[in-house]
Amino acid sequence: MVLTAMASLLNQDLRLYPPPGADSLKEAVAKYYNLTADQVFLGNGSDEVLAHVFNGLLKHSEPLLFPDISYSFYPVFCKLYDISYEKIPLTDDLSLDLDNYKRPNGGIIFPNPNAPTGRVLPLKAVEELLKANQHSVVVVDEAYIDFGGESAVTLVNHYPNLLITQTLSKSRSLAGLRIGLAVGHADLIEALDRVKDSFNSYPLDSLAIVAGVAAFSDDDHFKSTCERVIESRVSMSRALTKMGFKVIPSAANFLLVKHEAHNGIALAQGLRKQGVIIRHFHQDRIAQYLRITIGSEQDNQRLCMVLKSLITEQ
Amino acid sequence: MVLTAMASLLNQDLRLYPPPGADSLKEAVAKYYNLTADQVFLGNGSDEVLAHVFNGLLKHSEPLLFPDISYSFYPVFCKLYDISYEKIPLTDDLSLDLDNYKRPNGGIIFPNPNAPTGRVLPLKAVEELLKANQHSVVVVDEAYIDFGGESAVTLVNHYPNLLITQTLSKSRSLAGLRIGLAVGHADLIEALDRVKDSFNSYPLDSLAIVAGVAAFSDDDHFKSTCERVIESRVSMSRALTKMGFKVIPSAANFLLVKHEAHNGIALAQGLRKQGVIIRHFHQDRIAQYLRITIGSEQDNQRLCMVLKSLITEQ
Repeated sequence: MVLTAMASLLNQDLRLYPPPGADSLKEAVAKYYNLTADQVFLGNGSDEVLAHVFNGLLKHSEPLLFPDISYSFYPVFCKLYDISYEKIPLTDDLSLDLDNYKRPNGGIIFPNPNAPTGRVLPLKAVEELLKANQHSVVVVDEAYIDFGGESAVTLVNHYPNLLITQTLSKSRSLAGLRIGLAVGHADLIEALDRVKDSFNSYPLDSLAIVAGVAAFSDDDHFKSTCERVIESRVSMSRALTKMGFKVIPSAANFLLVKHEAHNGIALAQGLRKQGVIIRHFHQDRIAQYLRITIGSEQDNQRLCMVLKSLITEQ
Repeated sequence: MVLTAMASLLNQDLRLYPPPGADSLKEAVAKYYNLTADQVFLGNGSDEVLAHVFNGLLKHSEPLLFPDISYSFYPVFCKLYDISYEKIPLTDDLSLDLDNYKRPNGGIIFPNPNAPTGRVLPLKAVEELLKANQHSVVVVDEAYIDFGGESAVTLVNHYPNLLITQTLSKSRSLAGLRIGLAVGHADLIEALDRVKDSFNSYPLDSLAIVAGVAAFSDDDHFKSTCERVIESRVSMSRALTKMGFKVIPSAANFLLVKHEAHNGIALAQGLRKQGVIIRHFHQDRIAQYLRITIGSEQDNQRLCMVLKSLITEQ
């Protein structure tokens, strides 16, 4: 449905500016989540959405809180906008313990599921944090929520301090198009729209708008894609465990794994030499880990084959 | 060529992120202007490019200078990024006199041709300003340059303080796609890329990148479009003069006009009542003027017809 919608727009109308406000997409997202259009913010990918969130909502005298192992752009946005922040360490098993966030803060942000661990928090834990932090904005970055987590979208109408960000680049398979969104109380959305309107009035192009609308209509395709990723993740996880990897339970479209007998960097380099690129992080606490994205069936098989050969060789 | 290039991308590859850096488009722009790719910056429309320019290059202790009647977003960007600025009045006939910019400043920005006047400055005048301001960045906003001005692109290799911004939304008929660019010394471009990489790594989607490359290849289409706009502008200008309008000489794709015997707001409202929307600015110095964009032949005829009826009626 996305490709058909886009094809219908490949004509002379591209000379015209996109519809101001991208209302059709705001309405599609609102309808999908049982919200109203004034509870939806849109941006050119969720990085742009996050940038406006940091600039518009998270700059205060108390520090912003986020996990020490998390999305690498959070400290970058803080530096760009001169926002003071405090990194809250994950527990020893790389879990996010929200009790550690119950301290004075100017805002809280964390991905759920977290990246690059893949661990997900139950909705109940998120709700407790919202209750305990009613005087600051809590941002739940749900880039990977559709692969196995429970979205906090159902809490939006109950907690005016909740903002949720999502992207169409992961579970909706449209990374090439750059569409991100946020949902939350209309007052938070208005603040974001003010920042956005001072920066760039038309962040979404005409094709992205119709494609986004189609993506939220084509629920069959969306669900079957997510299911396929989840199935592949389960079988990948089983295969890697069999090879001796410790696999962190993941609700995302990637696995964070380590092997007691093999060095993380060496494995990453060995894979790369054979044309398989995975993610390795030069961060102390996860330097022994590999982050493996779930790919196509063919990609996954090749990854497992090469990894197996590296482990038995060495 | 643009539509063909985009159609070839409507497939499953949209699940992948756009090529990092959008190098193919940087190279296409560089080749078109006889520059190198490291002298080219790209953004999601020229508003995003300008926002990064203001944030990355124009914030200094001395004020930024720009015309009092000019692009309405300049003061908005200044407020967003807390940049001190000084508006330099246009002369009585709404001309931009660059001699007035030879004073202490933390940067200079002006559109050439200027908006909404349409008046263009000769390249010689721009070069004199660059010579007189070697210690600050001079930004020439060339959104409308292709409709009759001489681009300062040929000066880029001679003046490291020159930055030129352009858009594909006007003369290249791709407003629906959101592509803007800047060219200048590689050091200025590197500064802009640093700001951009802290904000959003992938501002251009995959379709915009291939469309942009095709747009800079399809020079025949580009030139014929510009010529048609210029021809229409000349005949519109003649028709409006005949009706008694004073028409400011324009090198852009719009005309700024006023009628001694008719109120500007009344005319704008009269047009709107009949479904013809032109631009009216509530700014003292130009409150009597109408800004009329050159449209299709049909649009132009309808505008002239309705305007004529309003003038003879009243």
